Amino acid sequence: MSKTYTVAVVGATGAVGETMLKVLAERQFPIGKLHVLASERSAGSKIDFGARQLVVENLATFDPTGVDIALFSAGGAVSKEYAPKFAAAGAVVIDNSSSFRGDADVPLVVSEVNPEAAKNRPRGIIANPNCSTMQLMVALAPIHRAVGIERINIATYQSVSGTGVKAMEELGRQTAALLNFQDAKPEVYPVQIAFNVIPHGGDFLDNGYTTEEWKLVTETRKILGDDSILVNATVVRVPVFYGHSEAVHIETREKLSVDKARELLAAQPGLVLVDERKAGGYPTPVTHASGNDPVYVGRLREDVSHPRGLDMWVVADNIRKGAATNAVQLAELVIAETA
Amino acid sequence: MSKTYTVAVVGATGAVGETMLKVLAERQFPIGKLHVLASERSAGSKIDFGARQLVVENLATFDPTGVDIALFSAGGAVSKEYAPKFAAAGAVVIDNSSSFRGDADVPLVVSEVNPEAAKNRPRGIIANPNCSTMQLMVALAPIHRAVGIERINIATYQSVSGTGVKAMEELGRQTAALLNFQDAKPEVYPVQIAFNVIPHGGDFLDNGYTTEEWKLVTETRKILGDDSILVNATVVRVPVFYGHSEAVHIETREKLSVDKARELLAAQPGLVLVDERKAGGYPTPVTHASGNDPVYVGRLREDVSHPRGLDMWVVADNIRKGAATNAVQLAELVIAETA
Repeated sequence: MSKTYTVAVVGATGAVGETMLKVLAERQFPIGKLHVLASERSAGSKIDFGARQLVVENLATFDPTGVDIALFSAGGAVSKEYAPKFAAAGAVVIDNSSSFRGDADVPLVVSEVNPEAAKNRPRGIIANPNCSTMQLMVALAPIHRAVGIERINIATYQSVSGTGVKAMEELGRQTAALLNFQDAKPEVYPVQIAFNVIPHGGDFLDNGYTTEEWKLVTETRKILGDDSILVNATVVRVPVFYGHSEAVHIETREKLSVDKARELLAAQPGLVLVDERKAGGYPTPVTHASGNDPVYVGRLREDVSHPRGLDMWVVADNIRKGAATNAVQLAELVIAETA
Repeated sequence: MSKTYTVAVVGATGAVGETMLKVLAERQFPIGKLHVLASERSAGSKIDFGARQLVVENLATFDPTGVDIALFSAGGAVSKEYAPKFAAAGAVVIDNSSSFRGDADVPLVVSEVNPEAAKNRPRGIIANPNCSTMQLMVALAPIHRAVGIERINIATYQSVSGTGVKAMEELGRQTAALLNFQDAKPEVYPVQIAFNVIPHGGDFLDNGYTTEEWKLVTETRKILGDDSILVNATVVRVPVFYGHSEAVHIETREKLSVDKARELLAAQPGLVLVDERKAGGYPTPVTHASGNDPVYVGRLREDVSHPRGLDMWVVADNIRKGAATNAVQLAELVIAETA
């Protein structure tokens, strides 16, 4: 009989938590016991998991003893309080919040990019990168390994599911209201998101960047293990439900041709090249990413403005590869250690 | 009695043509006779212009003799055939297509940026820049004049009205269909635009850029009169009705602080700074640009990845300042010569 694991999903009723459960089932993760946890408010509600029906348990009163792997996606404050408790009780915590990503003794891991880093987790916590960094790393890691990346200019087109279920409801509600000639009141976002774009993610820093932009700077360096990589980001929210897109303009240390870049990208696990120079010959959130795990790359071209510049367009489902799928992949890495 | 002019609007039933008429009325352009022209298909239909009702005339059979100023926005093929005929008959043609923008003997003019260039028009034609270049020039001209711009990385968020009335209908129709759980068939765009983003404008060039991206390279150089400016663009269509947005990352020849940039931009005619580092403290298509003439700039910050880098977010109504308003402003420049 093969080994099974006791798994806890914390934040099971959120957009990412729900998808974590879906991905655990799809990938047939060897689950023995499965605990679905949330705040007291959601406790007692029921969640389907394949043939089983699970009752949501109250995180605040839950005893983590016996949990092998805990997947956290319930916001930074919850992670900060409860992740160390689960780790102390012996669980390996895979945390989707930004709470521990910057800590030197917590690895930050994209499963196809730096899987070996997951093994060194003195605090029992592995951090799951931010969604926009996640997909960028899958696309850039093979290039960085081959020729080095000096600088990244990136502008993002981030879907509302990255903000959460309430933001998806807001986009739907505002869109329907506007089509019916009614007002679109902003609640989750500071201004209307329907038929609009908003150059703002997270909070504003003193240097004028937003926290979502800054994550691209710090997480890129940590994941690629190179603090000399320069990153300049503009993060923008767009009226798309699922799938983040990124216009990525990089400057490499050695010149990289499009042909060679195509070769490198084609060999990268978790990445699908969609790069025909014609109408529809590129990935988009709706046509490619939504509901799927790969990171899609297209619009590859040599940058006419820089001798070692290369441009690309990177799209992925922010809830799947950008969050839930990578978390489950990290759990797979953990159980593979003892298999 | 003040002088009046015979004006022709060619392509009067299109998205830009309609707005040209609106802007002519708003700005009380001194019109004597006004001809509204379109293809045979639209000829005979009626258009309101203030208190007057105008009958659309057939461009193919129209005699341009006596027209002082002709505003063209009926596509490149129509401009190519008819603009020279109007010019030969004595009209000054202000052309919104891309047909003549690259010609050395046709000035390419943003009214607040290089108005003096409009005077030198040996062929009687003045070209109106592409919408995405137009707003970029208003934001970058004062910086280029002060410290020189070496390189521009730009990613755009372009609204569907830039494609035309049918694209706006497509966005509305697809959105309604999806909210009613029906299919969203793409007709104008190669893939679904509702709740999606499409990294594609115009046609694909051999170097992998699209024609809409390439316009940003060539038109920027011509308008700013500096062929050494390097431009690297990714053009993306977003599900917004009116208003193009741009994430602009520039590298200047001399270092420019944010404070000094703010000063320069605040003094630029046609530009409004919306730059508070807080929620809503930036321009968006819906909250600022749509229906208004200025170019709005926000998200100013010094680029952490480059010693002379500066980032900004530029938004304008692509149909107004990006097309119709600038065309009417050029007409105002022309009549001011003889006033």
